[in-house]
Amino acid sequence: MTAETQASPTWVVEDQVAAAANAAPAALASSRGQRAEWLTRVALRLDEAGDDLVAVADAETHLSVDRLRGEVTRTTNQLRMFADVLDEGSYLEASVDVVGTIGGDGSQEIRRFLRPIGAVAVFSASNFPFAFSVAGGDTASALAAGCPVVVKAHSGHAELSRRTAAVVNQALDEVGAPYGIFGLVEGREAGLALAAAPPVRAVAFTGSLPGAEALMSAMSTREEPIPFFGELGSVNPVVITPGAALARAQELAAELVASFTLGGGQFCTKPGLVFVPSASSFANAVGERVESLPGMILLTERIAQSFDAAAGRLRSAGDVRALVHGAADDADVRVPVVLTTTIDNFLEHSDALLEEAFGPLTLLVEYRSLDEVITALARIGGSLTTTAHSEPEEDIDVLVTSLAERSGRVVFDGWPTGVSVTWGQHHGGPWPATTSQHTSVGATAIRRFLRPIAYQGAPSHVLPPDLTDAGLARLPHRRDGKWVRA
Amino acid sequence: MTAETQASPTWVVEDQVAAAANAAPAALASSRGQRAEWLTRVALRLDEAGDDLVAVADAETHLSVDRLRGEVTRTTNQLRMFADVLDEGSYLEASVDVVGTIGGDGSQEIRRFLRPIGAVAVFSASNFPFAFSVAGGDTASALAAGCPVVVKAHSGHAELSRRTAAVVNQALDEVGAPYGIFGLVEGREAGLALAAAPPVRAVAFTGSLPGAEALMSAMSTREEPIPFFGELGSVNPVVITPGAALARAQELAAELVASFTLGGGQFCTKPGLVFVPSASSFANAVGERVESLPGMILLTERIAQSFDAAAGRLRSAGDVRALVHGAADDADVRVPVVLTTTIDNFLEHSDALLEEAFGPLTLLVEYRSLDEVITALARIGGSLTTTAHSEPEEDIDVLVTSLAERSGRVVFDGWPTGVSVTWGQHHGGPWPATTSQHTSVGATAIRRFLRPIAYQGAPSHVLPPDLTDAGLARLPHRRDGKWVRA
Repeated sequence: MTAETQASPTWVVEDQVAAAANAAPAALASSRGQRAEWLTRVALRLDEAGDDLVAVADAETHLSVDRLRGEVTRTTNQLRMFADVLDEGSYLEASVDVVGTIGGDGSQEIRRFLRPIGAVAVFSASNFPFAFSVAGGDTASALAAGCPVVVKAHSGHAELSRRTAAVVNQALDEVGAPYGIFGLVEGREAGLALAAAPPVRAVAFTGSLPGAEALMSAMSTREEPIPFFGELGSVNPVVITPGAALARAQELAAELVASFTLGGGQFCTKPGLVFVPSASSFANAVGERVESLPGMILLTERIAQSFDAAAGRLRSAGDVRALVHGAADDADVRVPVVLTTTIDNFLEHSDALLEEAFGPLTLLVEYRSLDEVITALARIGGSLTTTAHSEPEEDIDVLVTSLAERSGRVVFDGWPTGVSVTWGQHHGGPWPATTSQHTSVGATAIRRFLRPIAYQGAPSHVLPPDLTDAGLARLPHRRDGKWVRA
Repeated sequence: MTAETQASPTWVVEDQVAAAANAAPAALASSRGQRAEWLTRVALRLDEAGDDLVAVADAETHLSVDRLRGEVTRTTNQLRMFADVLDEGSYLEASVDVVGTIGGDGSQEIRRFLRPIGAVAVFSASNFPFAFSVAGGDTASALAAGCPVVVKAHSGHAELSRRTAAVVNQALDEVGAPYGIFGLVEGREAGLALAAAPPVRAVAFTGSLPGAEALMSAMSTREEPIPFFGELGSVNPVVITPGAALARAQELAAELVASFTLGGGQFCTKPGLVFVPSASSFANAVGERVESLPGMILLTERIAQSFDAAAGRLRSAGDVRALVHGAADDADVRVPVVLTTTIDNFLEHSDALLEEAFGPLTLLVEYRSLDEVITALARIGGSLTTTAHSEPEEDIDVLVTSLAERSGRVVFDGWPTGVSVTWGQHHGGPWPATTSQHTSVGATAIRRFLRPIAYQGAPSHVLPPDLTDAGLARLPHRRDGKWVRA
């Protein structure tokens, strides 16, 4: 069932971009209610097509039917969440200023809100064929903003991408969304052309640092620079305190193994680096549990090869031990890898040991004191998440400050691979975790595709409907800086 | 009284950056109330020192004592506005999600807000020695966010920069702000080193496109990329409709002349391009009024030379006529320049005619129909502002749509050089007007210096005070996506 990428020729990319650019004025003119209807209809049709799509996705990605079913639900929930965001309306950040404006008589009052930036390009992720791909968070938030979207399919699930795009297009067509509001292209060259195309106003990307560098290089040829919203990689440090290791090593070991092997370890929030007390039984507990796990088929042959190479480099970074390193019979299968090293070796080889191995691998770093962990954390770049497992009586203030410096989500007594899809969720962090403050998860994802505009002294009949008195009556907004509820 | 730049040697830049980086943890830990006190004390001391500072500024910039007095007031109002923003607190975008979080029992609830990004670099503008310089909007919003600031002084007002910095430092010291929270460096090389310094987390810049390119080039050597918040240039198109030209050509001509020569035409919102009906008396009315104006001393000799060169290039772009082009007796003085051309010549030479001439020059483009203006506007890059002067009975819907595409502020029956400093004001626009969605004017300026962080399942005692139940009780925030007032 797995299908090859059908590389889009240049004229197809140009056509899709032109169609998206031509749809931009109608998307700009659409109402919040209309866009909410686009999103809920897409969610409905995806739910209906879920079983068929999941079968295609499982054949292409080996991520398992159960996991993929859950991901469809997450994806349609995301679409419906943005319908709610549109309905609520405060994302527009509407405001009216009269006090202190020029003239002093209200004739030059300032009415401001956020407006869509125009057509945008969305690059699908390998590891979330639904939630971060064709109809994922980037697409949902861009359509919600009123921006036409051209998606670049991921080669790891080419057929699923085509089928999902067909469902999206049909749903959008049913509710009268503008022609050209959504398109799909395939292949590496098409992706580079898409990012460089003049009408594209922003690029949203989830993938590897090398992939991002190729895109950013293509974008550097643009006459007008545009934002690059990238999520590029993350080792997601976890700290197990001495107290936690003493109190519940077995339980934490089981949870870690479940977390770092979830989805074949192909999660951007996979705990790839775990600081554990050297005197504890934690490492052995992890090793024992991993031995009994089955081998895993990774998303693509290329990802499997990259995983092997990265695992090899990590193993050669000084004094690193593989707790488990059986070889699988089948060349397509990878066994989970647990590496251990000392904090001293980590500090000596931190550059090499901070490489993200995308797949089922985690590195345990054995420390003597939490002070050493603080020192080590200072060497680590940005991650999407950091995690602390501790006991209530332990003083972790300094540790938490350090963890908060290095990530956008600090998890306590939980695991980073569980991501709640809620209004305030954040999935981002300092470079290279993400390249922008707001990302593809949570309600503020929409903000990436909007820019402020202020109307000064505008006659009511030329204002966008949301900024007229009648529109503001239905919107939470500010008046002279003070919040006014709808 | 004019003083030369005293170029900061490398070690001074390194010292200032290190001091700022060392101050970051204390700035992060400071309360909103403390930071509001920093800002109001700086405002107080600047107001007290106003007369002395204005005298220095006038000697260095020739911007006139009256204008500079007004600018001091604007600057201290900005500082106090950010104290209000801190007091109100919704800028933190605090939220709590319980519904739909992992576990389902509230043990892994998500508490999120925005936290400061760390030490930042601020580059002063030539043309606003107070409001966009040492203690201007960038500095005010960064300090409000909790970010230490290192300012690069502008060579056009070096002595004023030193004196202002001394006032700022003394005020911050009085109220116990952390040592190193504010610093100043001088000279081009120091500026490049500042932008490239690893501890600097963002660069805010107001200036020319070539200046920005030099900085961005220095920043491209960084191991970790950081955001560049730039305001780079703007021609600020104005459209006078046939109806407006017929009804009030004399009045509009007088207002245009006042606007494009304000501050020697050295405003980023100067109307540099004005579309006027070819059949009207508008151009002649402008020409007559300009003849009686005195010559102007520009901010620096370099700016004056650049102005002459740009004016020369504009005059040579095909069929361009200078309505007034008297020569001043004094080599330091520039006379205002009004150029006129036809819409056909503008379309033929639009690249050349869209150059921003920073100084007292405006280009009138004579059109036959508003359709021609729409065509011409499509050739124009982003501006900070666009403006329409029309009569109530005219249909300007298409025109307004076009103006809104090209700028971040659309002014109706007013002039763009008057900028209200209010909560919702916006001063930005598509490239090259600004490089980011949020800029140095208005309350959202603070957002540039903040990044989201989510705490998942955090024990109350490790949460930042604003995110505890007690803190949230004093903050407007969201709970499961719904607004809750303080």
